[in-house]
Amino acid sequence: MAETTPNPLLCPIARTAELVGDTWTILIVRDLMDGAKRFGQLQESLGHVSPKTLTQRLKRLESAGIITRQAFAEIPPRVEYSLTVKGTALHDIIEAMRGFGEAHLPLETAG
Amino acid sequence: MAETTPNPLLCPIARTAELVGDTWTILIVRDLMDGAKRFGQLQESLGHVSPKTLTQRLKRLESAGIITRQAFAEIPPRVEYSLTVKGTALHDIIEAMRGFGEAHLPLETAG
Repeated sequence: MAETTPNPLLCPIARTAELVGDTWTILIVRDLMDGAKRFGQLQESLGHVSPKTLTQRLKRLESAGIITRQAFAEIPPRVEYSLTVKGTALHDIIEAMRGFGEAHLPLETAG
Repeated sequence: MAETTPNPLLCPIARTAELVGDTWTILIVRDLMDGAKRFGQLQESLGHVSPKTLTQRLKRLESAGIITRQAFAEIPPRVEYSLTVKGTALHDIIEAMRGFGEAHLPLETAG
């Protein structure tokens, strides 16, 4: 008989990696740590992300309970994304990433 | 004239996200935190990763100075991967992910 393979999602690191193991997702969470943002603001901050990709990541974060989407009845309509309480708990990960980048990934100065 | 777009890699979080913003990469680093591992051991731990994907991630981590690859002149040949000093500095990120997963991503108990 084949050995049973342990479910990788039994590991809390793997569960977190499934959620935020994606560059755009990390940058969206980083941006929302400073407060609510509109779609266009996120798009501008993230640079070359496609609208389709950004929409997909936002929907995924919303369904995971990390962000909320609030629509304001204005003309033109305004939609804002913000972190939930669960989302703000990603703070330690984002700050650990900041610390690693500052200490170990210096800006390229050549070229 | 178009406004200049800030280089996203000016942000240390973005530089770290470029490096580890990938589920497999996070799990490889997690596994190597416990010590050196062979290719097959990583493959078994990661579950459904393809050999091609695992090879690509390991090469990328090696060229980024996060892991080293050591070949032992044995029969059959043995190759081990281990974290560099820079790689072990990812510890805080991995532990923050463990903390988030334990606190906010409970195991699915239904089904």
